[in-house]
Amino acid sequence: MQIVLDVFGGDNAPNKILDGGLQAVEACGGFELVLVGNKDIIENYLSDKEYDASRIIIVDAKTVITNDDVPTEAIRKKKDSSLCVAFDYLNNHPEAKAFVSAGSTGAVLTGAVLLLRRIRGINRPGLCPILPTQINGKNVLLIDCGANVEPKPINMEQFAIMGSAYADTMLGVKNPRVGLLSNGTEDKKGNSLNKEVFPLLKKNENINFVGNIEAREMLSGNIDVIVSDGFSGNVALKACEGTALVMFNMIKNGIMSGGIRSKLGYLFLKPVFKQIKKEMDYNDNGGAVFLGLEKIVVKSHGSSKAKTIKNSILQAKEAVDKHVVEKIAGYMQNVL
Amino acid sequence: MQIVLDVFGGDNAPNKILDGGLQAVEACGGFELVLVGNKDIIENYLSDKEYDASRIIIVDAKTVITNDDVPTEAIRKKKDSSLCVAFDYLNNHPEAKAFVSAGSTGAVLTGAVLLLRRIRGINRPGLCPILPTQINGKNVLLIDCGANVEPKPINMEQFAIMGSAYADTMLGVKNPRVGLLSNGTEDKKGNSLNKEVFPLLKKNENINFVGNIEAREMLSGNIDVIVSDGFSGNVALKACEGTALVMFNMIKNGIMSGGIRSKLGYLFLKPVFKQIKKEMDYNDNGGAVFLGLEKIVVKSHGSSKAKTIKNSILQAKEAVDKHVVEKIAGYMQNVL
Repeated sequence: MQIVLDVFGGDNAPNKILDGGLQAVEACGGFELVLVGNKDIIENYLSDKEYDASRIIIVDAKTVITNDDVPTEAIRKKKDSSLCVAFDYLNNHPEAKAFVSAGSTGAVLTGAVLLLRRIRGINRPGLCPILPTQINGKNVLLIDCGANVEPKPINMEQFAIMGSAYADTMLGVKNPRVGLLSNGTEDKKGNSLNKEVFPLLKKNENINFVGNIEAREMLSGNIDVIVSDGFSGNVALKACEGTALVMFNMIKNGIMSGGIRSKLGYLFLKPVFKQIKKEMDYNDNGGAVFLGLEKIVVKSHGSSKAKTIKNSILQAKEAVDKHVVEKIAGYMQNVL
Repeated sequence: MQIVLDVFGGDNAPNKILDGGLQAVEACGGFELVLVGNKDIIENYLSDKEYDASRIIIVDAKTVITNDDVPTEAIRKKKDSSLCVAFDYLNNHPEAKAFVSAGSTGAVLTGAVLLLRRIRGINRPGLCPILPTQINGKNVLLIDCGANVEPKPINMEQFAIMGSAYADTMLGVKNPRVGLLSNGTEDKKGNSLNKEVFPLLKKNENINFVGNIEAREMLSGNIDVIVSDGFSGNVALKACEGTALVMFNMIKNGIMSGGIRSKLGYLFLKPVFKQIKKEMDYNDNGGAVFLGLEKIVVKSHGSSKAKTIKNSILQAKEAVDKHVVEKIAGYMQNVL
């Protein structure tokens, strides 16, 4: 199996991306890592590093797509970018099963949709981060969080199916509970899109639909898969992120302005804060999976450092090992 | 000036609602409080209380609209409910300037839209809570957070105008910064509704539009008025609420399972946590204003206790004193 890494995507490219790649190779066997990007720079950086060269393939790509590029244009025009070359490589190498990038989200998603093959029957892939919940060790999936700003009802039904398959396979949750993100829990709540999606989810016997959920319930641990259009999902995700950040800042400010007593308290509670911060920094633990394609695509956060890249690669490896794509494809074959 | 109170709306009605009403009368002069609800029960409850009877008016209403009622039906059929009687009273008494209810949000909003007069030129009122930010003492308005699940672009432009007028008048923010809630900060981001709203806000010279904002920025203190459709606004609001709650639970669980060291730390940091909890529990400080009507309508949280009802009444009084309705009307006259 090969995993393809976009060496030049992300704020900390290429060095931290390469470090993460090498760490993943060191930590886990069973795959070769395909490094895509400027070959000279990559070879130069690797020249004084120790690693198993038999597991590293370098594929040259002269340019980079940045956050300043318009995704659709860049994907069409920058054929020699690390991203486009990586997609080409994935298409031409059946043994290349997965792709990891910390590059521009828009470009990664656009490129994947335009250049990679979708699982038969899937109309639109969905971006699916794994979020923490207040129950220790329990996670929740959100699909979609931004790839499809205005999906059709059938797309959202497919998000539910793909999210369920992912929760089952990767999180080990049997019969995962699927909730539809809405503005209230009652069956009749929602905008007109949600009102069309609700009956589709309700009558689908392959998912465990528990009804509408409010954004209040997202991190409660009472739900396993949150289905949303990409716009509301993005709003929900970022509202959670922002609030967690604000709470940490408030605690910090309170401690700083609270005298010796508060500082002592902080010292005693430091392990607790550290643990919570670790749980809430879900971006560190890997990336969001772009589900619905024939390859596993993991979008790592733009600010990813080596550890995150390593985790994203291992996450991609696990998804391939656990046959996530085949599980989704198998289900879709049943309904086609 | 009269302020009308729905005595039978809310989880803690009627006793805590009445307590809050009396506390408001005690705390602040300059208005009469109109108590709407079952007269016998109200009089019985008040019989052993001390209060200035010259400032209390009781208006009889035999029934109640509950959360189990379908709002539109209930507003049409339950003409003798505390809510419908209150709206009638407001319409027939020019001196009744404001209304406070902790009852069913759907019924309060539906009733206000159907039964109260709107400010000339305003097509749809918007529900506008006042949220805390990480900057101490600084608040942010969110409009709309649920009254209009699928507004038109013109409605959202009016939300921006009304929110600005409210921030200026009530929060004392000159030239309030208005942001459009979207799935990214770039000008071109958004769903098709947002893409129509963006140019309207941009060319409106009466507001200080700073562009699209992500939900991450909501509580940052960098923005004064967040404009949103009611669906996304509701999702954003409840995601913030839910995350704050989850963080408190995580801290609590961490402390409980962390031994004596953590418990000591908690003791030292208790004032800090208390302060943050107070700031994040924005529902305690009053209610969300339903802006765009000829009367000030304050929707207090369903779980409101006496203190919250008192605060909501004082908030309504302040909004009347500061001529919020007239300010919005004045602006609308200019653009009509």
